[in-house]
Amino acid sequence: MKPLVVILAGGIGKTFSPLKINKTLLPIFGKPILQHVIEMVETADFHEALIVTNPENELWLSTYQPFNITLQTIVANPRGMGDALLQARESIGSRPILIINAVDMVEPSFLKTLMKPIQNSYGFITGLKIKRNISAGYIKENNGKAIGIVEKPTPGNEPSDMVNLIFHYFSEPEDLFTIMNKIPTSDDQYEKALTELMAQRTIDIVPYNGSWSKLKYPHHVLDMMNLFLKMNKVNSVARSAIVSPHAVLDGFIIIDENARIDAGAIIRGPAYIGKNVKIGSHTLIRQSVIEEGSIIGFGSEVARSYIGPRSKLHHNFVGDSVFESDINPSWGTTFANWRIDGNNPRLLLPNCSIETDGKKLGSIIAKNVFFGVNCAVMPGVTIGAGAKIYPHKVIAVAVCENEVVK
Amino acid sequence: MKPLVVILAGGIGKTFSPLKINKTLLPIFGKPILQHVIEMVETADFHEALIVTNPENELWLSTYQPFNITLQTIVANPRGMGDALLQARESIGSRPILIINAVDMVEPSFLKTLMKPIQNSYGFITGLKIKRNISAGYIKENNGKAIGIVEKPTPGNEPSDMVNLIFHYFSEPEDLFTIMNKIPTSDDQYEKALTELMAQRTIDIVPYNGSWSKLKYPHHVLDMMNLFLKMNKVNSVARSAIVSPHAVLDGFIIIDENARIDAGAIIRGPAYIGKNVKIGSHTLIRQSVIEEGSIIGFGSEVARSYIGPRSKLHHNFVGDSVFESDINPSWGTTFANWRIDGNNPRLLLPNCSIETDGKKLGSIIAKNVFFGVNCAVMPGVTIGAGAKIYPHKVIAVAVCENEVVK
Amino acid sequence: MKPLVVILAGGIGKTFSPLKINKTLLPIFGKPILQHVIEMVETADFHEALIVTNPENELWLSTYQPFNITLQTIVANPRGMGDALLQARESIGSRPILIINAVDMVEPSFLKTLMKPIQNSYGFITGLKIKRNISAGYIKENNGKAIGIVEKPTPGNEPSDMVNLIFHYFSEPEDLFTIMNKIPTSDDQYEKALTELMAQRTIDIVPYNGSWSKLKYPHHVLDMMNLFLKMNKVNSVARSAIVSPHAVLDGFIIIDENARIDAGAIIRGPAYIGKNVKIGSHTLIRQSVIEEGSIIGFGSEVARSYIGPRSKLHHNFVGDSVFESDINPSWGTTFANWRIDGNNPRLLLPNCSIETDGKKLGSIIAKNVFFGVNCAVMPGVTIGAGAKIYPHKVIAVAVCENEVVK
Repeated sequence: MKPLVVILAGGIGKTFSPLKINKTLLPIFGKPILQHVIEMVETADFHEALIVTNPENELWLSTYQPFNITLQTIVANPRGMGDALLQARESIGSRPILIINAVDMVEPSFLKTLMKPIQNSYGFITGLKIKRNISAGYIKENNGKAIGIVEKPTPGNEPSDMVNLIFHYFSEPEDLFTIMNKIPTSDDQYEKALTELMAQRTIDIVPYNGSWSKLKYPHHVLDMMNLFLKMNKVNSVARSAIVSPHAVLDGFIIIDENARIDAGAIIRGPAYIGKNVKIGSHTLIRQSVIEEGSIIGFGSEVARSYIGPRSKLHHNFVGDSVFESDINPSWGTTFANWRIDGNNPRLLLPNCSIETDGKKLGSIIAKNVFFGVNCAVMPGVTIGAGAKIYPHKVIAVAVCENEVVK
Repeated sequence: MKPLVVILAGGIGKTFSPLKINKTLLPIFGKPILQHVIEMVETADFHEALIVTNPENELWLSTYQPFNITLQTIVANPRGMGDALLQARESIGSRPILIINAVDMVEPSFLKTLMKPIQNSYGFITGLKIKRNISAGYIKENNGKAIGIVEKPTPGNEPSDMVNLIFHYFSEPEDLFTIMNKIPTSDDQYEKALTELMAQRTIDIVPYNGSWSKLKYPHHVLDMMNLFLKMNKVNSVARSAIVSPHAVLDGFIIIDENARIDAGAIIRGPAYIGKNVKIGSHTLIRQSVIEEGSIIGFGSEVARSYIGPRSKLHHNFVGDSVFESDINPSWGTTFANWRIDGNNPRLLLPNCSIETDGKKLGSIIAKNVFFGVNCAVMPGVTIGAGAKIYPHKVIAVAVCENEVVK
Repeated sequence: MKPLVVILAGGIGKTFSPLKINKTLLPIFGKPILQHVIEMVETADFHEALIVTNPENELWLSTYQPFNITLQTIVANPRGMGDALLQARESIGSRPILIINAVDMVEPSFLKTLMKPIQNSYGFITGLKIKRNISAGYIKENNGKAIGIVEKPTPGNEPSDMVNLIFHYFSEPEDLFTIMNKIPTSDDQYEKALTELMAQRTIDIVPYNGSWSKLKYPHHVLDMMNLFLKMNKVNSVARSAIVSPHAVLDGFIIIDENARIDAGAIIRGPAYIGKNVKIGSHTLIRQSVIEEGSIIGFGSEVARSYIGPRSKLHHNFVGDSVFESDINPSWGTTFANWRIDGNNPRLLLPNCSIETDGKKLGSIIAKNVFFGVNCAVMPGVTIGAGAKIYPHKVIAVAVCENEVVK
């Protein structure tokens, strides 16, 4: 019996600030992440899914036509994952369930491989194989079975090389619900119940060794984008797109409907060029996603960046940056991605800053921001929605929502 | 009997400031506007023209060889159009006349169509068909005949949908002169006399429905340029021009003698590339006119702009702008064309500002202006002749003649 | 008997500041100038050379494998050219010598033509034919023989049209050494001895009419580079280099091993592209040398400039400039080469400035300098090693070593 897939897509996403969009609705390759998740479930041949979600997602879901799967939606405002599942208890009934988290993206083929353990297991969790220490829950195992979760162990104290990834299967979810009901509602209600269940029953571990990305902080959009870019192994140009014979395309590239690539434009894949996007002359796009309706005007370079819908660039350099939507930098404005002291850029928020991984990080810009000509935005800077920046400004600290920098 | 064509080309053009050039001598497509007017008259198969003009035009006319028309010139400093005509009275004698104004440009084919009404009419004026209210003289008509001119009616109070355009024919000009002589010299002496003549004789109206442009304010150079670009329906490359096989030409483009188009240059017509002009690598020219001897250096974008003779650009963006001549913006200097508040740019003069039509307007720059690197000139700004702007300046207000901005 | 070639390569080069490199080790076309000199001597079929040099050159020489010549090295810290030769006296012994100066570069073929006068002469000096007055020693002649050297004559007082160039031959160098030993050690000890020798014996003059360059001030690197570019008459692309089919190469160009030329790059020769160099998309290189490991990123223009090893450009304009090595200008930074007042740029050092020849001169930048985005460096400015320039700065005066400009 195929399980009901329970998709948790209701997080509020405080840490996603300054971006305003509900993170599971962020479009990548022209579709919200939530749609990608649903399509992954469909493709893996599941027939029913229950989405525990928030009103904003619900609104989008009400307009969405799934192809070959029955979707049911519960709008919830849960306190943690345990609470979310308990609110869905009635809808689940006695069916086996596979729980997945809409902000965790894996290679879609992984879901298909779960069919076999589903047939043979009382329950399992997924162990993401990981080499370096990350801030997450590590699986404690014994003879290949899960016996506990250790939250955020310090480096060297990891109980295994596997992190708990929410692709969890329970053939008899009532067992879990019964335990959860006895534990007070809290952020870790689910993990506590799961640990108790592990003591009572055999919970297997399904290892996962592929690519993975999770949207927590806004710069994770870049990781998520890279996962999608990496997974795409096709070249496709929509029939309605117009590609100048004087443009150069190289590597895996998707060009969506009605896009226009002008003479002298160069696209170095992997890249996605969305619907109605215009790539102007002498522009270079590399390892980037340009969402619907954006214009990348003359002489711009967009490298390893996410350009959300309806943005209008004009001779800009955008490196390792996230533009939510409707971003309008005028000619010459530059989004720098390398600190003068060579240190890793930090994510600069209005009241704090956050460590990041790499040597290169550009700007994180929420929707509807306008820049005058020849501005420079320093590495790691975040800019709030609706901000306006006058010409020739150097922006080295976070800009608040609707702030005007003169 | 073919009429004598009386070309009025003597206006002083105060409103053309900050541009210094006599507006009928402004070169477009490599020729002064006055030459275009003369050629239009020639092409329409008139045989004689009388030009009432000023000393500067006279100087140019003395060097000009008309092809197939007899030109006579009167140098005048008239007070208004009536005065100009009266000063030409003796030279006109008793011949029928067609009066045209050298700053009104129409589609050249229009002039040919006037031959028929000339044969059949005592006199006529031309009615420019217009849809929206403009600040001009509207024709009052009765049964297709002109019975008056209403100056600058408020919207909704226009007596017709036709504006008085100076393509006026009089088979017996002495009738007009006699009336004018009784009216004191003034700006509207001609219009008053014309109205009186309408009461005495039948003045027909020849409607004109085509493109039209008039040089009044300096940004009208763009309208005039657009008229020429629109009218050109040929592609031509002079035999002495050198076009790199790695350049891209698209649309109607005229490339004049000894011009050089380098590898990687892109010209999107309509466009005119003048004599000895150099278009550098990775430069984009669209819907623009580049006059003789200018250099559009590496990586520039010139959009919907008029670049007068001997200007030297180098990696600049020039949008919706007028460069009179000998303008030298250094690398990175930008002429912005869109206000941060989205309002229509106003034409910013030293002591006043003037409303303009569109969302986009760049700069109006008089001759001999130098900009250092990486300056930004805000929308609508005018810059006086001989100004010098130091590097990295943001110019948001008018710059006076010979001003140095440090 | 072929003479021993004595190569003087020990100068300290105070005037080469702010550049740090020993000037005979400056790489051009991927090889130190000293190597070019040695190869020139080899190619001219000399069999033995003695290099009087400093410890830094010695270190490089110890790693260098000459092809077909025996090299001997003397490490000296001489006070002038006479002292240098006297320190080499013992190593020279009684062999005839040809003295050459490693910072004077001539056309390599010249050296071959010296074989004949070597066979027929007691001794000769070389007379560089020169048209305008330069600050150097002019040869006084009598019936084609050298009878003296006049140091820095004022214009109009030159004793001949020939400047003393150090390609000097002595069949019996002991005669010279004997005289030198009687003269106190000083800067002009050699010239004094030479003049005395001219009185005793016949010293011929070998005229030289070809190209010549001498490294004295740091901007002379450009003259030296131009000499090399001019002398190269081959096109060569290393087998391991990758040139995009969408790149454009025009003129004499050498592309060295493992270089990569991206789509949309344009190289207008003469030019040298060193080992492992990357020329990015939409970049224009003309009349320039790019040394090993440098990256000329997207949309840059490098004109008539020397870019030393491991520099990283990104959308910069570099005109008539010298970048020693490891120079990192961020996006949009511009090295201007034309003064706003049209005067010749002076070389701007921390405590003085030096007159230069041409209308165009860019920047002279010592090693390890970083620029933030959108800076502008004014013509003639020198920048010391290790300086850091923050974004959007206009640099109009010299920057000292390790200075930070915020």
